[in-house]
Amino acid sequence: MPKASTQPARGMRDFLPGDVRRRRYVIQTIASVYERYGFEPLETPAVENLETLLGKYGEEGNQLVFRILKRGAELQRALDAPEGADGKREFADLALRYDLTVPLARVVAEHRDLPRFFKRYQIQPVWRADRPARGRFREFYQCDVDVLGSTSPVVEAELCAAAAEALESLGFVDFTIRINHRQLLTALLDTANVDRAFHTDALVALDKLGKVTPDQVLEDMESRGIPRESAGQAIELFLPELLLPNVDKPSNHQVATALRERIGAHDDGIAALDTLARIEELATSTAAGGCLKLDPSLARGLSYYTGAIMEIAVPDLAGSLGGGGRYDNLVGMFLGQSIPACGFSLGLERILVVMDERKMFPAALEQGSAAEVMVLQWSEAALADSLALARALRAPGPDGEPGPRVVLYPEVDKPGKQFKYAETLGVRVAALVGEDEARDGTVTLKDLRNRTQVTVPRAEAAGEIRRLLAAGAGH
Amino acid sequence: MPKASTQPARGMRDFLPGDVRRRRYVIQTIASVYERYGFEPLETPAVENLETLLGKYGEEGNQLVFRILKRGAELQRALDAPEGADGKREFADLALRYDLTVPLARVVAEHRDLPRFFKRYQIQPVWRADRPARGRFREFYQCDVDVLGSTSPVVEAELCAAAAEALESLGFVDFTIRINHRQLLTALLDTANVDRAFHTDALVALDKLGKVTPDQVLEDMESRGIPRESAGQAIELFLPELLLPNVDKPSNHQVATALRERIGAHDDGIAALDTLARIEELATSTAAGGCLKLDPSLARGLSYYTGAIMEIAVPDLAGSLGGGGRYDNLVGMFLGQSIPACGFSLGLERILVVMDERKMFPAALEQGSAAEVMVLQWSEAALADSLALARALRAPGPDGEPGPRVVLYPEVDKPGKQFKYAETLGVRVAALVGEDEARDGTVTLKDLRNRTQVTVPRAEAAGEIRRLLAAGAGH
Repeated sequence: MPKASTQPARGMRDFLPGDVRRRRYVIQTIASVYERYGFEPLETPAVENLETLLGKYGEEGNQLVFRILKRGAELQRALDAPEGADGKREFADLALRYDLTVPLARVVAEHRDLPRFFKRYQIQPVWRADRPARGRFREFYQCDVDVLGSTSPVVEAELCAAAAEALESLGFVDFTIRINHRQLLTALLDTANVDRAFHTDALVALDKLGKVTPDQVLEDMESRGIPRESAGQAIELFLPELLLPNVDKPSNHQVATALRERIGAHDDGIAALDTLARIEELATSTAAGGCLKLDPSLARGLSYYTGAIMEIAVPDLAGSLGGGGRYDNLVGMFLGQSIPACGFSLGLERILVVMDERKMFPAALEQGSAAEVMVLQWSEAALADSLALARALRAPGPDGEPGPRVVLYPEVDKPGKQFKYAETLGVRVAALVGEDEARDGTVTLKDLRNRTQVTVPRAEAAGEIRRLLAAGAGH
Repeated sequence: MPKASTQPARGMRDFLPGDVRRRRYVIQTIASVYERYGFEPLETPAVENLETLLGKYGEEGNQLVFRILKRGAELQRALDAPEGADGKREFADLALRYDLTVPLARVVAEHRDLPRFFKRYQIQPVWRADRPARGRFREFYQCDVDVLGSTSPVVEAELCAAAAEALESLGFVDFTIRINHRQLLTALLDTANVDRAFHTDALVALDKLGKVTPDQVLEDMESRGIPRESAGQAIELFLPELLLPNVDKPSNHQVATALRERIGAHDDGIAALDTLARIEELATSTAAGGCLKLDPSLARGLSYYTGAIMEIAVPDLAGSLGGGGRYDNLVGMFLGQSIPACGFSLGLERILVVMDERKMFPAALEQGSAAEVMVLQWSEAALADSLALARALRAPGPDGEPGPRVVLYPEVDKPGKQFKYAETLGVRVAALVGEDEARDGTVTLKDLRNRTQVTVPRAEAAGEIRRLLAAGAGH
């Protein structure tokens, strides 16, 4: 029989036990912070109706949605449709979740009995048919936290605080939350006389500031049909170092004041700057205090944002650890009636990459072995007794503390081979009932770390193992 | 703008906070038992290459695999291929995970450095394009536990023990583990003179015993081309009450003895009965002791099983809570070299259905509200201070115990409305800093259960809240 490929699908990953432990540690740490902020857990299906997702992420997003093939008669109907009949030639009816925000909006529109201010967190995978690259996968986890039902800037401040505290709990101390506002972006482009029809194109080009030189962005904008003078003005407005060439590391207040002067009577722009100042003020006494940096060049790709937008970054990672913003119109696309909303999403994979490079995982997690004790097999006749011994050793301790993790060697084998295997697994204690032990009602316990062994009455074996494991815990 | 549908996709479900808490409780209980047995966690991608899944689940299984549409040029090539070119007319290259066993076999074939006896558990969703029905969904979780690398019946006994202990930990006391063997099924059909070419068809029909009458099964078998006499003999062999008409509730030993007499010198059948007897003997002193019931009619649908097969059931649920078996050839389909394997899968959705109907969830889980404390808002000027208060109240206690879950009312509103909202959420304590409190450096705490309130110095608020929450915990 020819062998089948054993690789996971392109851009997807298998997580072996050590990987799963590290992922769970990060997920549980983040979830625990979010729960202390009063966010409640939500889970949605991996699969959504295709129409639920289309038109929510912009043209590029639409292309990256994984589509699921229709089945049976439905598929045949699509195949039989004439080439021109585009709607009927749709071969997919379902799609894989692309983010956690659109499903949340759908759920909130569906369940009208949720709390008025619905605060939920959701930690689940999403799928994008992107070109895989270092740190970019086709299946990856997002850790989202959102507040629905309020337009108050308290929401933005609290979301920044919760995301900052989640990162702090993982050991991050050096992050910055870049913050901007969609209406400020519009005001800046208006001020630079960029025609509104070109705003989307301009933002795609301007989003590259910091990755490529301002001159390259200028050329890119020109090639998109934006006059050179407007492009130049926009770039100056978007880059604080060009806006305030004589100020070293300008404060948020200095940048905002300079922008206010330049955008003049642009009401929406002024309101956006007011909101951003208020968010910063509210965040001062939270875990995000001092972390917010007003960055007029921050654009965020997703088309559903309507107000403040945020992105969180650390110095040693190109790209962000997460981001979010206000999207007051998305629920309305499902409900026909607007519900204000704002959210923040942490990217699990990027967080893991940085934590791995910086060796930020607790030592216990890295040393963690599945089993602490292995029960060895002496003879075919004693197999059933070994199962009974393993069961007894797993029992809770006298104070109700959970018993140790006890693994069973599954078959009779040379004792030396079994001891060696126990060492390979990283097991601490090996337990054996041989002929002598069976006759005497005892168990021999071998401490595999210091290679000492002791034979104890069977009833005392569990207690002796607890002592051996506790004694070694500090080493 | 026309409203989009807000329903989840057909056969899929959204899980609101209460649902997520119940699901997590069950998942964590099961995972914790599996870990104490020395099983390590594994996770695989939701999406597999289509070729990885096809040909592993039988013809019916192939039909139920969700296929993912090719993208870009690949899709166009498939569309442009002439109608006859079946291979090239394949529109899908990827598929959704159909079970957790085939991905495990792929991972074990890929990673040749895993422990020789690889014991893994995996709790993840799978997807099947089945017709949705009560308790049957298109996205559902499986809780799998498998041992690779040993042919010893200790493995089957231990898997039954682990599954039984997982169910016991959830509060189940009345389950039965039906057990059978693929080679015994073959021996019984051989004994009934059913032609080997008809064995698969015969098992599909015989699998319905217990759901429909023996006469209906007989007719079904005849309609599939099996002679009436053979069909009748097979039914008699498959049903202990027909095999031993004079014995009330025959023991496993009585059934096995009767089957031994009937299958005579069928070596594979005798070996299968020996293995089943050995598994039962080994399981005696485990959590599965006394639960195993030899059931010659148990067939299990999946085509990859090769040896013992098991299914676990409770009296008040049609169908099973889980099942499994030995599949010694599946890894070989990926590796080109056999690795023995055996596994048991618990069905999360069915377990939840029964636990819900029997009200088996702990009271704390049912009463569980997200937030224990709500910080109210007095004025626009005091919003930043409320964020600071919420942060202080969330701080860990003096002994390092985690702080309470504190939710913030996000905007200024009438106090009465805010108190009412706190009650709706099930919050225990409301905290307010009004004008007096701001002036005096105090916080007013209202116990929403007994409607008493107390005003304390701000530094004492966290301690007072701990007292209030602890006092109410027993009620």
